[in-house]
Amino acid sequence: MKIIRDPVEMQQYSDALRHQGTRIGFVPTMGYLHEGHLSLVTEAGKRTDHVVVSIFVNPTQFSPSEDLEAYPRDFARDETLLEGVGTDSVFYPTKDAMYAGGYQTYVTVENISQNLCGVSRPTHFRGVATVVTKLFNIVKPHVAVFGQKDFQQLVVIQRMVKDLNFDIEIIGHPTVREQDGLAMSSRNTYLGPEERTSALLIKKALDRTRDLYVEGNNKAPVLLQKAKEVLEGSPRIKIDYLKICDAHTLEEIEEIRGEAVMAVAVFIGKTRLIDNYVFRNPS
Amino acid sequence: MKIIRDPVEMQQYSDALRHQGTRIGFVPTMGYLHEGHLSLVTEAGKRTDHVVVSIFVNPTQFSPSEDLEAYPRDFARDETLLEGVGTDSVFYPTKDAMYAGGYQTYVTVENISQNLCGVSRPTHFRGVATVVTKLFNIVKPHVAVFGQKDFQQLVVIQRMVKDLNFDIEIIGHPTVREQDGLAMSSRNTYLGPEERTSALLIKKALDRTRDLYVEGNNKAPVLLQKAKEVLEGSPRIKIDYLKICDAHTLEEIEEIRGEAVMAVAVFIGKTRLIDNYVFRNPS
Repeated sequence: MKIIRDPVEMQQYSDALRHQGTRIGFVPTMGYLHEGHLSLVTEAGKRTDHVVVSIFVNPTQFSPSEDLEAYPRDFARDETLLEGVGTDSVFYPTKDAMYAGGYQTYVTVENISQNLCGVSRPTHFRGVATVVTKLFNIVKPHVAVFGQKDFQQLVVIQRMVKDLNFDIEIIGHPTVREQDGLAMSSRNTYLGPEERTSALLIKKALDRTRDLYVEGNNKAPVLLQKAKEVLEGSPRIKIDYLKICDAHTLEEIEEIRGEAVMAVAVFIGKTRLIDNYVFRNPS
Repeated sequence: MKIIRDPVEMQQYSDALRHQGTRIGFVPTMGYLHEGHLSLVTEAGKRTDHVVVSIFVNPTQFSPSEDLEAYPRDFARDETLLEGVGTDSVFYPTKDAMYAGGYQTYVTVENISQNLCGVSRPTHFRGVATVVTKLFNIVKPHVAVFGQKDFQQLVVIQRMVKDLNFDIEIIGHPTVREQDGLAMSSRNTYLGPEERTSALLIKKALDRTRDLYVEGNNKAPVLLQKAKEVLEGSPRIKIDYLKICDAHTLEEIEEIRGEAVMAVAVFIGKTRLIDNYVFRNPS
């Protein structure tokens, strides 16, 4: 497994791969990897010849009040995990290599970035779109795989790729969960034992919604009320948002007809967790 | 000379060229070509194996009050001119192919875009950076050539390429002028005969500045005052801005030490013309 730290060296390496006809798969991460990330690497490996994983805790997607410095990091552990799933290369740049002096260029996906997580994190998706543009230009992949757990991020990236004509296929991979249903996240390590128990109500609320939808309920206010009741089962949970939106525009809807998503963000103590359920067209 | 209208077809064509080891040069234009554009094509041809010229009057760099609809267009004439200088391919997309329904992604180069033309055209460089990002992703060039006449545009693109890690060499090509010194521009066709005569004072003002600088004057207020006096020789000229700036940050400076630029924009009647003089380090 090759470790590359310099952006220009990564570009030259990807150019050489491309010139040989090798198809490149890419999984961008902020490190502190869990099985969710590893499943993205496996998925990329099924679709391409050479998988590059980037590890970079991107400062531009954190606001000044957020947990940039506290964000967990363990490169040695990540390296072992990535070797274990057959990763071909790791791009692991420094902050200075990514954001040199005088840095001032940002990519904004306007409407989709504003609802859901964009309400409490107004510059978050600008940071995500910017760093992903940079990583796409450095890694030059044919395919990139993102987790559906970060549903809004996936939709933002899909829109950006379409709008800016990136010649890259974007794959959304299903959320990987712990045995008990909690969506895997690097932030789960912040949870105390009692908080961890409360966090299970997130998946329970989404399951309740799914069951009601499958039974024929497609009115958003009804589904939201039932999900809210489940989350209110723990006084530790503070809802940041709970919404049902069109799966492509992320605009709130009253009734589920096409593809839609129930998206939820909660605070448990100081930890903010997100999850979602995607309503597929009944077939 | 191949004409390609579809972005995906252009990407596939460029991929095939790259896979053969062909180096691609690129000159983005809004059409209605003059010798200035053609010199960029020739320059790109010297540096690469295959030159692609794009012709696209980009709506996102015009404000609602500006001359988008009136902007001159003549594809048949452009085609003949491009054939004449050995252009290999022309990318000539429709507006709908470039900005489909739901379009919402923009690239912003923050500080550099705000001074000079950014004052009177606050969204102009956002439109330029956005369409150039799109064109880079579609044409996939190794080298792109821009005219120094649009000096701020060149600096914005250079900064964007560095910040977003585009693996593309950006060349700034010297301004091409009419016999009498007027910088070539598609907008020169708007000028009536008397306006055309007044327009010559722009180059005269820059020449006066150059002469004073070469004689040892490096104080910006003095040079600006002398240039202003030349421009005031015609009552038809209304100065939009006349500034001396650092050539990389475009921040105004009081004294010329490193690379700097005198940049000027004037209205003559309804026509807005720009020009500049770059102060090189005395050698």
